Formats: sequence, structure tokens, C-alpha cells
Amino acid sequence: MKTPATVVIAGHAAGLGDALSARFEAGGYTVVSVSRRGDARWATDLRDARASANLFERLDSQAPPLAGVIHNAMQFHRQAFLQTSAQTLQEVWQSMVLTAFNVSQQAIPRLQAQGGGSLIFSGASGSLRAGPQFSAFSSAKFALRGLSQALVREHSADGIHIAHVVIDGLIRSERTAQRFAPEAGAALIEPADLAEQYWQLFHQPRSSWTHELDVRPMGA
Amino acid sequence: MKTPATVVIAGHAAGLGDALSARFEAGGYTVVSVSRRGDARWATDLRDARASANLFERLDSQAPPLAGVIHNAMQFHRQAFLQTSAQTLQEVWQSMVLTAFNVSQQAIPRLQAQGGGSLIFSGASGSLRAGPQFSAFSSAKFALRGLSQALVREHSADGIHIAHVVIDGLIRSERTAQRFAPEAGAALIEPADLAEQYWQLFHQPRSSWTHELDVRPMGA
Amino acid sequence: MKTPATVVIAGHAAGLGDALSARFEAGGYTVVSVSRRGDARWATDLRDARASANLFERLDSQAPPLAGVIHNAMQFHRQAFLQTSAQTLQEVWQSMVLTAFNVSQQAIPRLQAQGGGSLIFSGASGSLRAGPQFSAFSSAKFALRGLSQALVREHSADGIHIAHVVIDGLIRSERTAQRFAPEAGAALIEPADLAEQYWQLFHQPRSSWTHELDVRPMGA
Amino acid sequence: MKTPATVVIAGHAAGLGDALSARFEAGGYTVVSVSRRGDARWATDLRDARASANLFERLDSQAPPLAGVIHNAMQFHRQAFLQTSAQTLQEVWQSMVLTAFNVSQQAIPRLQAQGGGSLIFSGASGSLRAGPQFSAFSSAKFALRGLSQALVREHSADGIHIAHVVIDGLIRSERTAQRFAPEAGAALIEPADLAEQYWQLFHQPRSSWTHELDVRPMGA
Repeated sequence: MKTPATVVIAGHAAGLGDALSARFEAGGYTVVSVSRRGDARWATDLRDARASANLFERLDSQAPPLAGVIHNAMQFHRQAFLQTSAQTLQEVWQSMVLTAFNVSQQAIPRLQAQGGGSLIFSGASGSLRAGPQFSAFSSAKFALRGLSQALVREHSADGIHIAHVVIDGLIRSERTAQRFAPEAGAALIEPADLAEQYWQLFHQPRSSWTHELDVRPMGA
Repeated sequence: MKTPATVVIAGHAAGLGDALSARFEAGGYTVVSVSRRGDARWATDLRDARASANLFERLDSQAPPLAGVIHNAMQFHRQAFLQTSAQTLQEVWQSMVLTAFNVSQQAIPRLQAQGGGSLIFSGASGSLRAGPQFSAFSSAKFALRGLSQALVREHSADGIHIAHVVIDGLIRSERTAQRFAPEAGAALIEPADLAEQYWQLFHQPRSSWTHELDVRPMGA
Repeated sequence: MKTPATVVIAGHAAGLGDALSARFEAGGYTVVSVSRRGDARWATDLRDARASANLFERLDSQAPPLAGVIHNAMQFHRQAFLQTSAQTLQEVWQSMVLTAFNVSQQAIPRLQAQGGGSLIFSGASGSLRAGPQFSAFSSAKFALRGLSQALVREHSADGIHIAHVVIDGLIRSERTAQRFAPEAGAALIEPADLAEQYWQLFHQPRSSWTHELDVRPMGA
Repeated sequence: MKTPATVVIAGHAAGLGDALSARFEAGGYTVVSVSRRGDARWATDLRDARASANLFERLDSQAPPLAGVIHNAMQFHRQAFLQTSAQTLQEVWQSMVLTAFNVSQQAIPRLQAQGGGSLIFSGASGSLRAGPQFSAFSSAKFALRGLSQALVREHSADGIHIAHVVIDGLIRSERTAQRFAPEAGAALIEPADLAEQYWQLFHQPRSSWTHELDVRPMGA
């Protein structure tokens, strides 16, 4: 890192948020983790366009220039369709798609202005295939994938690297490790390993950008 | 048709709505076309879960039993991402996805109760590939596709045939014919031809159901 | 049918071949079923380009004009990768892909000359997703799908309707019915139902062509 | 690298082969580049199963243990379908698919025996979408993708990391740079950048394996 720069991590998918912070801080970035009830300094409801704008305006004056955003807002939701309310459908969509839209609206003009940067969105198995009881979750994850595809085709030429990671497995966390360990422990994705891939993706050279990749543990 | 039955057409994609009505009426169905500002008798804002429930309750008492629903709410939207507001994103999503969710919530228990029926959702080229300036449109169309996949995996065993039609071209209408005719006229999808495919899809036998098919004109 | 016309059925996937013959004969076509050891009059090794050319030359003089071809050469093959020989890989490919190539080489110029026609290829679940022990089968089925996509983009404008049917289930036959019936009987695709879909696909009007559709039984 | 190990590069896609050799040699591997008319010591016709077996037997005795194979046999082929012969179709398939099959047959038991390793296959835009005049090329590239999917589902649990890289653009080489440079130079993939991604992919930790990723230059 020649000049100090900021990476915003928007939302905290189980297990991955801390590993991403650690990896990008170790790499010299100022990491700003944003969630509704996280670090009080930057806590923001990213479903709110105005609040999102305020956040990035504060970052403009209080943090180094923006290098990119990692969107990691994962509201896992499994529920029988006929038990799912329209309100739940909308909340899951707002939590995963509207937040991605709002941070992209803020990040893209800033990255354009400084000649480039990276935007990474976190998908799931359900981004590519919607199973039973995943009407709200997969509908939102499909929507996020569509959004990321539209963005890459519209803003790649501005030097903005837009990627979509299909996390096709469970990330190790206290909760997942208890539930699935130890016998099946090998089947969990280690947060630090996954964070390393985000790091590599974030820094791909401009001649060789990946828009979409899947990740799963050995044997899965 | 041995017994009278009702087909609900929810929303009116350009050119297709009338052709669907004509085809299903010719086939003996009672067709109920529902839109916000359509046939006054059934006009309903399908983005509203309560209003959707009211509609189907009125149909229960005033129309023959439900045979199925064709969802045809297409709010074409093309706009540069940075010009698109969060409100627009949400409106496009509500108009294409929330309406599909609400009619499915009403239709599925009714179709379960009578042992089967059909639900058809109308997709577009942008359901599979999101181009530049289609962030709102494709994000919603991807979401609709995810929803329809979750529904088919959850409710196919109930005898409910759920299909997603990827309309990969322009449907002939006054507007599209003026804009593209006559020299490129061959490249428009004829509403009556497309309606015939919906008819066939709607009536596929249970041993041989298609969940997804694309449609485009010769040479496209 | 105003004028007599010929449909060639190339290969015999279990259960489907006879149903296709019956459906197209009932519809007024002259049906020519071609396989290596089938009807002696037309028996041809379609893996052989020269033999394929001879077949179509004989049809030119001895049968009504060609209306289209249904390719139905399905050599199901499941085998552990390390047990599969290079020769088997090549044989499976020849049986499913080279035969499709050879009949297309013969059919397309004839259909061009008379202003149109239909070519339908039969795929399988393994055309979209390759599972373990399906290295030979899925590699060939993927190849067939790629071939059919290239053909539709190259020859759709000639009035040739090229379609790919993803048969995502088992077709009822003596063999499959014994193995899976009666309790799971509902999960078999009825050959006559599937043949009806080929019929509809074959005759789609030019404004509304489907290139790819999947088929599976209710509940699958 | 704690212990010396061998990486086999099978075939030479324009521009990429040398960069892969350089990257993996710099990383401490013994790199063995195999093509029909390449390095005389290892020159092998990988379309021949017996010759492929001989090659790996010679490697067993003359080179360090196998760490993995990168398959990079790319025979670009663009030709009108009706001009393409059955022999060409088969040659393109043999050159891209049969070679991948043969090296996988040799590599997998060796990697199993030593507890793991990596196999990377090189795809192209035409692996996902077959355009006009790409019947031979895309049919083969689809087949290679199907093969790699079957392998990952069959052998991932053995610790063998199997990946498929969709190279969605032109790699810089003397030929491509002349043809497209300098004005459009930005649109070429730099071989060294792409080789770095193969390096990262080859060394992904077991908890976080990518099976498929696409690569294209900024703005493409």
C-alpha cells in the first residue's frame, strides 16, 4: 500500500466479517465495518439511502480515500413459502439487495473520481439455485446477483472491479462449528481462507478480472 | 373443459395480456384480468398483500374455481445505475416480484385444495443476463426467477405446475410495431403465438412438466 | 399437413422413439426411424458422415421432402472416471454428438432449400450439471448442448427451428417401470406426453420459437 | 515449497503457456511443458492414452512427485457449420477434451496416492455460450466443462482440487497484440496476470476451493 486507503465492509455474514477486517487491516487498509448495531462510530442502517449517503460523507472527511467496498450482508432465511409473509419477503430483500444498491450508489462515484477500486458482493448457493423453503432468501440472492451483473457491465470500464462470490458452503463460526463439528468439521469454510480470496479478488490486476467465482470446501 | 374454471391474469405486459385473455376464453375459461387500473370489477393493487387476499376471496364467491394464475406484470425499466433511486429499485421490485409473491400466496392453497393447477411467471432476456442500465429491471427479474424456482421445488409435489417463461424478444404491440416496423417486423413475437405457448404450458400433463423455456422470434 | 413430408428420428432413447413415431405418423408425416440396428430399410451408422449422406440421398429420392429431424441418440453411461477408458469416452461422444453433427450437416442444407424446418436434440439432466460417474455421459451431453446453441445462432435466420430438450427424469419403459414401479410410478415421464411436447415444439410458429426447455414429472 | 514437486502444463494456449512456466518455476516447481512439438524431452501426443501413460511413467522416475496439472490445450477454431467436416469436429474434440481426459486419468491416481494436488482446465467464452461459427469449438469447450464438473464431484473428496477457468477475452501475444493494438491494448489479458491467478487457484486451501471462475479485462 503506497497511500492509506479505506475499505468498507458492509454487513457481517457469520464468521466472515472479522476475518475480512483482520486481513485488510493486516494489508494496510483502514477498515470500516458498518452494520446497524456494530461499531458505534459508523453504525448505519444501509437500507436507508439517506443514511448511507451520510455515512460516506463522513468517511470522506474522516477516513482515507475509499479503495472499495465488500458487501457481506447475509440474512439467512429458511421458511416454508406459505408461512412467509410479504413483509418478510421485503425485509430479506431490503437487507441483502437494497443495502448493496445503496452502498454501490455511494461507492461508485467516489471510485470513478479516483480512477478505480473494487466492489465485492457475497452470494450463496441459493444465488444460483433456489431450493424449497428458500423463496425469500433465494429471490433476494438472485436479485443481488442480477444487480452485480448489471453493475459490472455498466461500470467495469470506469476501472471499477465488481465481483460476486458464490459462497457454496457453511463458514466456520461458533454456531456452525457446534452444530456440525467435529466429525464433519472438514466441510466448513475457514473464514481466514475465504478472506484471503476476497483479498486476492480485491487486488486483481486490470487485465485479469474475475466477476464471479464459487467457493466450497474440499469434498463438498 | 369439463367444469368451468377461472384463470387469473395478473398484470399486463405489453401486447400479451389481451392475447392471453382471448386464448383462455376461447378455451372455455373464465378469465379475470387484474391490474391496478384495468377492469374495474377486479382492479387490485397486487403489491398489497391484503388487497390480494381480498381479490381471491371475492373470486371464491363470484367466479368458478381457480385453475391457475398467469403473472404478467412487466414494468420495463432502463436507466443508468447512478440515475436510479433506491425508491425506483424498490418500486420495480414491488411491481414484478412482490405482486408475484402475493398472488402465489393466494393461489397455492386454493390449487392445493382442489388437487392442482398452474402458475406461470413471465420473465425476460434480463432474467438470465443483466446488461448495463438494467440494474433495477434485471435485479427484479432475477428475483422473480429465484422465487419461481423455490416455488416449483416446494409445491410441484402438490400437483401445482409452476413455470417461468423467458421472453427473449419484443412482443408486437402498437408501440413496438411502430418503432421497429416494417422492415424488422419479423423480429417481433406475435402475442397470439406466445399466448398459444402459455396455453400449452398451462395444460402440460403431470408426467411432463416444463419449468423454464425461452421464446424468441426466428433469426433473433 | 397440406403436403406430405418426412420426419427423421435419429436414434432411439428408451421409450421415446416409438411414441415419437406414433405421434408424428398420427399427424400425417412419413416417419423414418434410423438406427444402427433398427428398420432394415433405413438402418445407418450415423457416426459415419458418408453413410449419413447416403441415407439422406436415398430419402431425397424415396421419401417426401424433409420437414425436420429429431435426434434421440441417448447412450446412457454411468461409470467411475478411473474405470472409464479413452475409447469409451470417444464412443459415447460419437454416439451422441457426432451423430447429431452428421444428421445436422445433411438436414440443414435441405431445410434451407425448402425454406425451413425443425431440428430437435434430446438432452438430459446431465446436459446442465455433471455428477460423479458421469464424466463420459455429461461431457458428451454438454457437447451436444454446445452444438445445438451454435446451430441455432447460425441457422435460425434460415427458418430452421433448432431446439434442445432437457429431459430431466426417467422416461417410462419396460425397464424403468420394472425398476421403479409401482410405488414411484408417478415419477416417470410418459413417452406419449413427452412426444406431444416434441410435436408442439416442432410446430412452433416462427415468431415464437423455444430453443431450450426442461421436462420432468410432477414432484421431481 | 518444502519439497520439490512437478507441475505438468499440458498444451500451450497462445501466450499463457510461457507465463505459467515462469510463474510456477519462480514458485519453486519443476515445470514440465508437454505438447506434440514442444520440449523434445517430454513431447507427447496427449490424444493418445498409451503415450500419455508413458509420459507420466517417465515423470515418475525422472521428475519430482506430481503436484498437479494445468491443461491448456486450446485449439481455437471458427468455421461456418456447413464448412466444418466431421473429421474437424472430432479433431477439435480430441485436441481439447480427449487430452484433458488422458492427463486426468494419469494425474488423479498419482495425486490420490500422495494425498492431494490440483488440476486446472482452461475454458473460454465459448464454454458457456456457443456463438455462430463455433460449432466445433464450443461443442468441445462445453464437453471439457462437463468433464471438469464430473471430476470435481467425483474426486474433490480425495483432496484433488479441480478448477475450470473461463478465459473470457484475448490473451496478449505477438499475434493478438499486432491485430488489436495499440488502441485497444487495454482489452487484452496479460499472460503474467492470468498466470498469477492460476497460481493462486492452484494453491487455494482446502476449506475454500473455487471450481469455476471467469477472467476478462477491465471494460470488457
